[in-house]
Amino acid sequence: MPDLGKPIQKLKILVIGGVAGGASAATRARRVNADAEITIIEKGPVVSFANCGLPYHVGGEIPNRQSLIVAKRELFWNRFRIAIQTQTEVTSIDRNDKTVTVTNLETNESSILSYDRLIIATGAEPNVPAYCKPMPGNAFHLWTLNDMDRVLEKVNNGKVAHAVVVGGGFVGLEVVEQLHRRGIHVTLVERNPQVLTRLDPIFARMIENHLASKSIALQLGNPIVSLKMEGNDANAAVLADGSEIPVDLLVVGAGVTPRIALAQQCGLSIGEKGGVQVNDFMQTSDPNIYAVGDIVEYENAVSKERGLNPLAGPANRSGRIAGAHAACGSSERMGPVLGTSIVRVFDLTAACTGLNEKQLQSRRTEFRTAIVQAASHASYFPGAQSMQLKLLYSPHDGKIFGAQAVGGEGVDKRIDVIATAIFFSATVYQLSQLDLAYAPPFGSAKDPIHMAAFTACNDLANLPKLKLPTADLSGLQVVDVRTATEREKLPLPNAIAIEIDEFPSKMDQLNPALETVIVCHSGKRAHIAASWLRASGFSNVSNLTGGMSIRSLTGKGNG
Amino acid sequence: MPDLGKPIQKLKILVIGGVAGGASAATRARRVNADAEITIIEKGPVVSFANCGLPYHVGGEIPNRQSLIVAKRELFWNRFRIAIQTQTEVTSIDRNDKTVTVTNLETNESSILSYDRLIIATGAEPNVPAYCKPMPGNAFHLWTLNDMDRVLEKVNNGKVAHAVVVGGGFVGLEVVEQLHRRGIHVTLVERNPQVLTRLDPIFARMIENHLASKSIALQLGNPIVSLKMEGNDANAAVLADGSEIPVDLLVVGAGVTPRIALAQQCGLSIGEKGGVQVNDFMQTSDPNIYAVGDIVEYENAVSKERGLNPLAGPANRSGRIAGAHAACGSSERMGPVLGTSIVRVFDLTAACTGLNEKQLQSRRTEFRTAIVQAASHASYFPGAQSMQLKLLYSPHDGKIFGAQAVGGEGVDKRIDVIATAIFFSATVYQLSQLDLAYAPPFGSAKDPIHMAAFTACNDLANLPKLKLPTADLSGLQVVDVRTATEREKLPLPNAIAIEIDEFPSKMDQLNPALETVIVCHSGKRAHIAASWLRASGFSNVSNLTGGMSIRSLTGKGNG
Repeated sequence: MPDLGKPIQKLKILVIGGVAGGASAATRARRVNADAEITIIEKGPVVSFANCGLPYHVGGEIPNRQSLIVAKRELFWNRFRIAIQTQTEVTSIDRNDKTVTVTNLETNESSILSYDRLIIATGAEPNVPAYCKPMPGNAFHLWTLNDMDRVLEKVNNGKVAHAVVVGGGFVGLEVVEQLHRRGIHVTLVERNPQVLTRLDPIFARMIENHLASKSIALQLGNPIVSLKMEGNDANAAVLADGSEIPVDLLVVGAGVTPRIALAQQCGLSIGEKGGVQVNDFMQTSDPNIYAVGDIVEYENAVSKERGLNPLAGPANRSGRIAGAHAACGSSERMGPVLGTSIVRVFDLTAACTGLNEKQLQSRRTEFRTAIVQAASHASYFPGAQSMQLKLLYSPHDGKIFGAQAVGGEGVDKRIDVIATAIFFSATVYQLSQLDLAYAPPFGSAKDPIHMAAFTACNDLANLPKLKLPTADLSGLQVVDVRTATEREKLPLPNAIAIEIDEFPSKMDQLNPALETVIVCHSGKRAHIAASWLRASGFSNVSNLTGGMSIRSLTGKGNG
Repeated sequence: MPDLGKPIQKLKILVIGGVAGGASAATRARRVNADAEITIIEKGPVVSFANCGLPYHVGGEIPNRQSLIVAKRELFWNRFRIAIQTQTEVTSIDRNDKTVTVTNLETNESSILSYDRLIIATGAEPNVPAYCKPMPGNAFHLWTLNDMDRVLEKVNNGKVAHAVVVGGGFVGLEVVEQLHRRGIHVTLVERNPQVLTRLDPIFARMIENHLASKSIALQLGNPIVSLKMEGNDANAAVLADGSEIPVDLLVVGAGVTPRIALAQQCGLSIGEKGGVQVNDFMQTSDPNIYAVGDIVEYENAVSKERGLNPLAGPANRSGRIAGAHAACGSSERMGPVLGTSIVRVFDLTAACTGLNEKQLQSRRTEFRTAIVQAASHASYFPGAQSMQLKLLYSPHDGKIFGAQAVGGEGVDKRIDVIATAIFFSATVYQLSQLDLAYAPPFGSAKDPIHMAAFTACNDLANLPKLKLPTADLSGLQVVDVRTATEREKLPLPNAIAIEIDEFPSKMDQLNPALETVIVCHSGKRAHIAASWLRASGFSNVSNLTGGMSIRSLTGKGNG
């Protein structure tokens, strides 16, 4: 239990940056130290605003701009006696003198401020692709209130018919939806062959298909190479394949880079991933200097490696810890992160936690995959929505490495529960034992989480084992246990069709000597059929995980 | 990792009861053992139905009766080769001969069936209060499809103006809402002084107030002592205080009792709480006989004690485990339960997990309490709903004992996450470190779970400590930091009013020598004010946890 009871007397605490964990650090510092002198120095015009809300104001879903200002200057002073200097940039840090040089961006005057403890919360800045240097007059990021105001001004003047959004990450997808709400034709250009690279390709495909169903034009793996200009504005984007798309508005969401210039300038240790190195109390290599938010490297709970994780949750929590530690020399510990993240894309939600396939592969970590399709709550209760839930886990001990979900309501709950389980190094066996809240409006007696865990446990016990959705099925005995209607809708050529309810009486037509894969729509009925075969002496039987609902997204047939 | 690969050959598995985990056991048994002979013997007319859905069909929220039949007899045979004998009662078990005697309830013929493995899933039966013996013609349980049909018939004939529901547990509250949907005036009679006894009284109060706002008449702590009859029907209920309420329909949800007669008759070990004793594979004291569902005593993850837990989740999971173990001699383990449960009551949701105050007190376990009010998602994003979230935890190491939540959307998610954390013996420190999914439509960068954990961590570090909502405030220096409008709405007499934004400049009017309690609406602003005082040398400062939003539910003023 941390002892936070001893505020350090007459301490000067400077916080650089209000948004990315800085305000959180400053207010916590105050709460544990009444007589410290606390100042936030912020480059922008507003000390604290809801940057995650910006896209939603563009589309009008958050109608009131004012609601995005989390806390005003007066509140910081009146409630917390925290002084705010906005429009002020810290240009250098002198660790020996314990001073920083600041420049007032309005008057251009410089001055020197001293500190006992310094908290750097400079956040990240949006990347600018080469073809956007310099940024055309109609090209914007959506990173600050000012960015938002400029995008809105452009949209409100009514002359935006075609918008191009660069980057299919969280912010990019939110912007796509919100511009679409404004009646604008939107093209999403993503240089990778998929949106949401935190998800594995098949799960991203569900989001891509959903975007297409909303008439969003997708350019995946076909990046912009140049812009055609008309005066200061871009009027067309030229893509790698030579095609051109019209541009009235360009919104760039091409990732972010941590702002570590100050940390570098004063010689703080920088990690391999380009973030500031910190300990569990957010102290940098200089124990009087803390770093929080998007600029630091966090420990990953699964890989134990340190890396960037520019998300609001860890930024707030790290600020809170740095604030306490700076103000009284002790605090709770940060703990590892999981990269847990979520985005709503029109009617779907995509969320993930832990490591994905690519991350596991790059670490040469062996893993297994289970995918289930399940209803958000009891299917007999109105309003149940479908989700696909994927678990990645160790073939050796069942330890969960990561999870992904795409679907309707309840995706957030399942990912949060699994993130919690992973935090405690859970195995799929433990996941299957969780005692979750059930009533028909909220879940099922066997929750989607249980179903995923059961499926993974069965896989590990060879009851039967699961086959990857992308598996090559050629040369195998493929058995399709769906109904005729289902087979017509999503055909699986070259499969032997035996409907599940006729399976026990007809399975003797199958050859026990052949490697056999059973397929249904989601994997549930296939599990039953595969169990029959396995228990009937078939030596090599598997269940195509996720069934045709997932296989159909892979672009593979039966070969 | 359990090895489930070796089905026992030529095994006869009998399952007694299809509903409470029985069907789950039988289908799992089949999945691991293709040649076992599997039979379900069910007393009722239907082998498997959605008993949790019954109330919702009465109110029309689940419009289709057929959707409540989970799986039909034909499916069991065609898909699983599981034989079903409905309307058949097992009257005795002979463990030496490994046989059971069954009676066909239609023909009244008896016969003897042999087994190698027996799975008892007889479930629980609804309690009948003394004044309902015999049950009047217009009094019903809501436990079987037949019960539901009879209630519906009564309601549909249009002559039910006044319904009385006995029992304010989960089913009782669901029935209250659904009868109200049908335009019936409903009185809820609960012999305890609160509804939902799994919740602590103040959290139950929120549900009681909500029921009252929907014009549900509440009789708490004022049980029915007798019924006035007119022919076979009750036409009034006489309460303990002598008052009478009219009765056109009486629905009894007065708890359930496990059906252990068969287990007792054949001499299986029964636990102290009146349930069948089982091991982690659901084996009874006779290793060839398994018991699952509502009749067994489960281990509690917090108290480590065994007790009844008649809920659908554990019933299904225990069935699954017993089925595998019976069929192949090994299985996953059941693991402990937490009593995690949830109910929707009109526009509110109430959920809980782990132990409540009463359970902790009866075990003489010291505990601390933190209550926070928080929004379901970022408050600047439309549609955020408020919830109250309560944590009970150890004063010694911060280990979480239990949690309760009442509010709108997202209550289920928070309780499931905390249930998962408790499953892994989490402390409030670990809870504060969880990396949860955040985007404005789904949560906040500091989730309600984090806020509750932070509050608890602060309490344990005396930053400042928390005071119980029911605390006696007389003789203390009580400081109210709310606005004038808030104070008018929910007055706190005898408190010194200093609004939070004037606190730093006006706090010198307070006496540092006195024990001081700070109060605001939810506890958040009070935390800031209390931090000022504590850090300014006030020796004994506390924050009234949950603030006036909770204090106002306790019926206590400032004394």
